[in-house]
Amino acid sequence: MSLYEKHKATLDAAIKALGERTYYTPYPENPKAYAEDADAKAKAWISATMNNDFKSLSQINEAGWHGEEVSPFLQVGIGVKYPIFSVDNLIANSKHAQKNWAVTSPETRAGILIEALEKVSKRFFDIAYATMHTTGQAFMMSFQASGPHANDRALEAVAMGYSELTRFVKETEWVKSFGKFDLKMHKDFKPMPKGISLVIGCSTFPVWNTVPGIFADMITGNACIVKPHPKAILPIAIVVEEIQNTLKENGFDAHICQLAVDASSAPITKLLAEHKDVKIIDFTGSSEFGNYIETLPKTTFTEKAGVNSMILDSVSDLKAVLGNIAFSASLYSGQMCTAPQNIFVSKEGVKTPEGVVSFDDVVNGLSAAITGLVDNPKAGPGTLGAIQAEATYKRVNDAKNLGGNVVLDTKTIKNEEFADARIATPVVISLDKTQSSIYNTEAFGPIVFVIKTDSIEDSISQAKALAESKGALTCGAYTTDEAIKTQIADEMNSAFVPVSFNFTGAGFINSHAAFSDFHMTGGNPAGNASYTNPEFVTKRFVWVGNRYM
Amino acid sequence: MSLYEKHKATLDAAIKALGERTYYTPYPENPKAYAEDADAKAKAWISATMNNDFKSLSQINEAGWHGEEVSPFLQVGIGVKYPIFSVDNLIANSKHAQKNWAVTSPETRAGILIEALEKVSKRFFDIAYATMHTTGQAFMMSFQASGPHANDRALEAVAMGYSELTRFVKETEWVKSFGKFDLKMHKDFKPMPKGISLVIGCSTFPVWNTVPGIFADMITGNACIVKPHPKAILPIAIVVEEIQNTLKENGFDAHICQLAVDASSAPITKLLAEHKDVKIIDFTGSSEFGNYIETLPKTTFTEKAGVNSMILDSVSDLKAVLGNIAFSASLYSGQMCTAPQNIFVSKEGVKTPEGVVSFDDVVNGLSAAITGLVDNPKAGPGTLGAIQAEATYKRVNDAKNLGGNVVLDTKTIKNEEFADARIATPVVISLDKTQSSIYNTEAFGPIVFVIKTDSIEDSISQAKALAESKGALTCGAYTTDEAIKTQIADEMNSAFVPVSFNFTGAGFINSHAAFSDFHMTGGNPAGNASYTNPEFVTKRFVWVGNRYM
Repeated sequence: MSLYEKHKATLDAAIKALGERTYYTPYPENPKAYAEDADAKAKAWISATMNNDFKSLSQINEAGWHGEEVSPFLQVGIGVKYPIFSVDNLIANSKHAQKNWAVTSPETRAGILIEALEKVSKRFFDIAYATMHTTGQAFMMSFQASGPHANDRALEAVAMGYSELTRFVKETEWVKSFGKFDLKMHKDFKPMPKGISLVIGCSTFPVWNTVPGIFADMITGNACIVKPHPKAILPIAIVVEEIQNTLKENGFDAHICQLAVDASSAPITKLLAEHKDVKIIDFTGSSEFGNYIETLPKTTFTEKAGVNSMILDSVSDLKAVLGNIAFSASLYSGQMCTAPQNIFVSKEGVKTPEGVVSFDDVVNGLSAAITGLVDNPKAGPGTLGAIQAEATYKRVNDAKNLGGNVVLDTKTIKNEEFADARIATPVVISLDKTQSSIYNTEAFGPIVFVIKTDSIEDSISQAKALAESKGALTCGAYTTDEAIKTQIADEMNSAFVPVSFNFTGAGFINSHAAFSDFHMTGGNPAGNASYTNPEFVTKRFVWVGNRYM
Repeated sequence: MSLYEKHKATLDAAIKALGERTYYTPYPENPKAYAEDADAKAKAWISATMNNDFKSLSQINEAGWHGEEVSPFLQVGIGVKYPIFSVDNLIANSKHAQKNWAVTSPETRAGILIEALEKVSKRFFDIAYATMHTTGQAFMMSFQASGPHANDRALEAVAMGYSELTRFVKETEWVKSFGKFDLKMHKDFKPMPKGISLVIGCSTFPVWNTVPGIFADMITGNACIVKPHPKAILPIAIVVEEIQNTLKENGFDAHICQLAVDASSAPITKLLAEHKDVKIIDFTGSSEFGNYIETLPKTTFTEKAGVNSMILDSVSDLKAVLGNIAFSASLYSGQMCTAPQNIFVSKEGVKTPEGVVSFDDVVNGLSAAITGLVDNPKAGPGTLGAIQAEATYKRVNDAKNLGGNVVLDTKTIKNEEFADARIATPVVISLDKTQSSIYNTEAFGPIVFVIKTDSIEDSISQAKALAESKGALTCGAYTTDEAIKTQIADEMNSAFVPVSFNFTGAGFINSHAAFSDFHMTGGNPAGNASYTNPEFVTKRFVWVGNRYM
């Protein structure tokens, strides 16, 4: 049985879910669904891996070894070194590997890629610990975001790619009648991969944000070079290792997917991005670098910074709402691209069944909800995780000097397991709408601004203008008024921002579900890509048709 | 019955043909298939239209009237003036019209657009005469290219657009089980149009190259501004008139599609293209202007200049081959973007069943075939048409000074109907491969270079390098050797150029059939667009999904 036949049911189910936008995953998100000894084995693995060279890749002829990752939980280097390759070496390997992969059928490619995801799923616990000790995500998020949820997004890209690669007939006998005679041609139609592709990872979601590009590149026949952030290599190194193993086992060149580690002191990202043979670039990271990537004469897919807004108008249960927002703002210490930053509340307050709650009471209520969450030893450490970068830690601790009224300052809390963890709880600052210079820019990390506007219309207008100028990944809105709901949807959607309405309980605006929610729209300054719309795959290849008489 | 219901069978058939790449058209290309008096009525219409103001548009508040079209057949101005509108007026109208159109269903839009095509089909003869007297195309090409073939491409864009707009469910009830409870969300998914769109036309194919952009824009909900070439307005003005009539009759704002005529002395193209509210641009024309368009931070679709090659290796009937190439090079005097310019022949000659024919004999045979065609009074005038622009006429007549061996010089021939027509027959120049500075650039018009290479491999390599550096819309190849056929396909396809093999009889490399052949691949410097791949429509809108708890 071919790998395509082995995985056809999964592929078909994924394609169906994509069209119907329903819940679907072949990879359970509950760690308990996996082998009982998986966690213990992974703990042993991470211990053995730390302070050693990472020798599991199938790439040879390295120019040296390097690693500079620091665990945000331990605040010491993890000591893993990776092989470093020259740009020339990487490009030459990709060019060679591309040739055969480009003419491999979509069926074979899909089979191999889903098999690779199955192998990756066997490493979810290893990946989780690798993610913890590079990004600062707590265990559960590390497991889910870098494990099953990342696999879901990768499978989604494979499903969308396979659909697009097979949407036209491969060949046809074309006949045009001229009455007296028929003009006949044989035609074939080939999806030609564009060329070598580069996927540039980020430090906070090194797997989730990287695998969509890798799998979209590979299903469409492109050889792929994965350039991780120098501070978050290990989790994606495992994924590349398993992709390479799968390729080799099936007689393909492992260099179809290469890992290209560099050092902060000797970056190779621009060298790769500007190389004439690199035709496709996926990038997650800063707006500054992302804007540079977008100016290159290549096919680019970017996820940059945005400023996410919430709009509070009227609620049926204010406590549930503030608890939900508190969690969204605290989850992974606000280091998610989908974390809420600006909460717009009219000076007229928020309407509740018990009457209007004033702006100040809303701000105080939110601060109390955050304090209640982070001070709860069973919930706080696992929600917050740790702060990935020193710069973020500094930004949060300096936030009190931004201006506005610091209603809740940041502090640290105790993590029983990791005494040295770099932790900062969310800071809450209330602002007047006139203080836009403070809130009109991304303040990455656990920093929440609650902004007093003139009215609900003003709140919507502020959120929309900000999305148009700075971009946004998501918007949360709370209203019990159907007319206002429509107004918020229309206005934010016209700025190409999706809105999540009245989320409470287990629904959080931070989470975008694969197969159902598009992650990013690609329509505003937060990024030009969307996981996974058709463009995310079709831009990676070119339809070429030949005619034969 | 709604227009959607009225035209559903056509839409469904078009979508089916697109997937199967089969021959399909609802618009017969034979003029005889239309009303018997259609031609006579159109002749009367063009007489009445010339030297008058074009008052059939539904746009008001013009700032003035202007027209500067010159008939290449009469070599006098046709005297039609069009209303001129300010950029501010055009943009304001589009913005207003867009609002309602953006929320109109794909079904309603498709119904209106196919109805508009039906109305346009009633004007095919008017459009044919308008095309003749602006572009210089002979009647049959004017009729087919601006009539049924253009309508086919427009319908193709509608079909692809409708498919993409409806590929996901509009809404879903999403349920994720957490074991103890279910997380439920209502979700909707909306294809949001990007905004005002601009379609910039060219002087040689003012309808065929313009309607794909117009109909792709409109099916995806965008208001569209059509900026024709100042020398080729009348044919597309009729199309816009009929689109506006259809919109009005169905209660929509006619300004969803506006005509934006300008004067060569006061161009508005850059003002429109750079306007902040214009988000999408379709362009056909020079590489210089197209490259500028591509640098704008907008969604762009370009068709620029390319250099098309033919490769001669071995043939079963040399006379049939040379006759076919002679026709391809002579059709509309080589003013097609798909006309062959460079014919690569090895110094070893061309293999035929009767033995090898030398390079010189091939060049002489091609020249003889062209002479036989253009000197035939029944075929010559109708094939050549007239030269659209004075600059092209000068280029052809100066070609003898380019260098190389002028085997056949250009001349004029008599057109019985139009004594003053600007006619230039093809010039044939034989070159050595070392004279690449002569053939490595587009020589627009009836100029054919036959280039002596070292071998078939050398011919392929020259054609491929040229396609990669200068772009190409098409490539013709003649070989009876299967290995060489594969080699040519692989090499040219990897430069994203389609190859037409062994065309003789009624098959010409110039013609790309809607629903079957992609026109352009979008993958080489000849342009970034493709009629009609999925990207041609998906890039015009953004998927946005809202979630409701």
